[in-house]
Amino acid sequence: MRATGVVVEYNPFHNGHYYHLQESKKVTQADCMIAVMSGNFLQRGEPALLSKWKRTKMALLGGADLVIELPYAFATSHAPRFAFGSIFLLQSAGAESFCFGSESGDVSVFNDTHDMVSSQNRKYQTHVSEFMSQGLSYPAAAAKAYELLDLPVGLDLSKPNNILGFEYIRAGRELGSIIKPLTIKRKNADYHDVVLGKGDIASATAIREAVFSHDIGKAENYMPSFTIEILKDEQSIKGKLMNWEQFYPLLRYQLLSSSPAEINSFYEVEEGLEYRMIEAMKASDSFQSFMTRLKTKRYTWTRLQRACLHVLNKIHKEDMHRILDSPPAYLRVLGMTETGREYLSHVKKSIDLPLVTTFSKHDFEGLKMEAKTSLVYAQGASFNRLEAEKEEYNTPPVMVK
Amino acid sequence: MRATGVVVEYNPFHNGHYYHLQESKKVTQADCMIAVMSGNFLQRGEPALLSKWKRTKMALLGGADLVIELPYAFATSHAPRFAFGSIFLLQSAGAESFCFGSESGDVSVFNDTHDMVSSQNRKYQTHVSEFMSQGLSYPAAAAKAYELLDLPVGLDLSKPNNILGFEYIRAGRELGSIIKPLTIKRKNADYHDVVLGKGDIASATAIREAVFSHDIGKAENYMPSFTIEILKDEQSIKGKLMNWEQFYPLLRYQLLSSSPAEINSFYEVEEGLEYRMIEAMKASDSFQSFMTRLKTKRYTWTRLQRACLHVLNKIHKEDMHRILDSPPAYLRVLGMTETGREYLSHVKKSIDLPLVTTFSKHDFEGLKMEAKTSLVYAQGASFNRLEAEKEEYNTPPVMVK
Repeated sequence: MRATGVVVEYNPFHNGHYYHLQESKKVTQADCMIAVMSGNFLQRGEPALLSKWKRTKMALLGGADLVIELPYAFATSHAPRFAFGSIFLLQSAGAESFCFGSESGDVSVFNDTHDMVSSQNRKYQTHVSEFMSQGLSYPAAAAKAYELLDLPVGLDLSKPNNILGFEYIRAGRELGSIIKPLTIKRKNADYHDVVLGKGDIASATAIREAVFSHDIGKAENYMPSFTIEILKDEQSIKGKLMNWEQFYPLLRYQLLSSSPAEINSFYEVEEGLEYRMIEAMKASDSFQSFMTRLKTKRYTWTRLQRACLHVLNKIHKEDMHRILDSPPAYLRVLGMTETGREYLSHVKKSIDLPLVTTFSKHDFEGLKMEAKTSLVYAQGASFNRLEAEKEEYNTPPVMVK
Repeated sequence: MRATGVVVEYNPFHNGHYYHLQESKKVTQADCMIAVMSGNFLQRGEPALLSKWKRTKMALLGGADLVIELPYAFATSHAPRFAFGSIFLLQSAGAESFCFGSESGDVSVFNDTHDMVSSQNRKYQTHVSEFMSQGLSYPAAAAKAYELLDLPVGLDLSKPNNILGFEYIRAGRELGSIIKPLTIKRKNADYHDVVLGKGDIASATAIREAVFSHDIGKAENYMPSFTIEILKDEQSIKGKLMNWEQFYPLLRYQLLSSSPAEINSFYEVEEGLEYRMIEAMKASDSFQSFMTRLKTKRYTWTRLQRACLHVLNKIHKEDMHRILDSPPAYLRVLGMTETGREYLSHVKKSIDLPLVTTFSKHDFEGLKMEAKTSLVYAQGASFNRLEAEKEEYNTPPVMVK
């Protein structure tokens, strides 16, 4: 059986995701679609609006056959580690290739940009560091560094999605080019589009806007019916869908009851950001207004939200470094279809990493971080909180026929 | 001008308190009534249902002339340190005597019990420690230790109120017997009475029950009209009156996101209590059910609630010890009447401790703890939280004519 992989968050699963899965299947002629998916917290530094279990179900209903968890440390890391963890897991699970979405649909521009940069990698990295130390964000620094290399026009690295594709390519190369990179041209919606479009594809951002303004109906055209059903179901079980505002009282309490030194001990809180955080918090009465006060040119919104996540989850620098310094140590199966199960039983013996299907049987540091952060995630539930807390331990892999 | 003192919490101020103040004034013929009052957190290990400022106003309207804050460390400490801090502040403020409430109204039984115990103090303390290490609570251990001394019948030390009176006497003696202990016989209500009685006096416990079951009307006969007014006013400004349930999500988050070692670093978390706390929390969805699970014979409810307070406020053992090991370092004036002001200007020069009326001008460690815990207290407000957070710094002493 042949497998291909995708890297996803599905926050929530929409028609664009469906299209991407189907196209990836068609292009690769794969028997099994593997999705590496972030858990309860996402790369943009946000809580997922639905738990990992609900999003796994959507993935399986939408065309994935096997859903593997990207551990918290990688899922909430900057693009290079996020990409490395994801591609490493896909390769470890036996995928021959991976398919990412892009505006161009042309993988060669990604490959070429990568090759050009890597031919002058030391220079490039030095420039990136310099620009970042001057106060630029990572994408801005990457784009400017590329410009300085005086190479033929490549990818526009100032776009976060291109950076991600670029890092996927780099991760694949780092892993020995065994896994083949492919890209699928996106349909219609732009990543950050906040207004629902006219076709049947809209960005997840626009869909979340509609969902949180209590207007799921407005977004119905852009999501498969199973997504709508699961969204409504989750609302009825746990109260509101999760977003930062629900965790805001906890973040506020955490920031205001900790010393600057304690806050500085959390991952991604650097260069006095702890003082800015405390001051911004004292003047704000919502997460949105807090973030608006916190934002500077130096850091992207995403980067700041990630720092907030690590404060909320109390993730210390040294713990994060220890996990990020090695590739993921296990393959955690969040769910599978019949096909996924068949695939797993075929490749089981050739997989080097331990397969985790029962949480309590394993003792990996990454899993402990998963438990810790899931416990915090459960605090966002408006009701049935005790049930939400137990999900991480009690939920068996989601099965969909 | 002659002054006498009382030690109070006024949670909230009721007719019994009014009676006690008036009687104390009558008996001592004092020109100035000084009240040493706990701030936002109380000796029973609870948040005060009204802020220190509102309770100061009630104290002044009810007959006190000068309200001095008992710092957090002493206010939330066990009876010996609570009593010592209180009597020390009264003596420092120049009070000739202090008046505490008792069932008997006879100070000699307190004095005699103190003298008998202190004649065999080493033996008594050894017994108390032994009984506590066998799992008895402090009042139970004190009562049993006293029995073993084979002395004439004295105070019933198993009653928390008697223990407190006993400790006031002891503190006075420790401070050189300059300040004279007096007691006023309580009227009617028993301390822990949870049902409103027939007279015009009811316990604060019974009154809080009525207030929190949304039935202030039921308790109106037992409180002066200014208390009712202030209670209603506070509800309209900050949402609910404060109780543990409002802080429960924060305590829950704090316990579930911390390691046992971190929890053990907080004051009064001893002997593996941290593990019990985490387990009880995982199984409970309210503060009440959490406490019921946490309770053992070894610790009183009050002692456990105090440990929870220190976890909520993140008060580390070493910080608490450092403050408790010395007497309070300053006299913080929360409010005064014209008489109180006159008194202060008379005695100002003879007072050894620095007077704190403007928070920001001072740098005492005790005041920093006040700021830290008041910030946490403000998180319990349902709305106007930013205003509540600034109260500690911005509020000048309450003035009542």
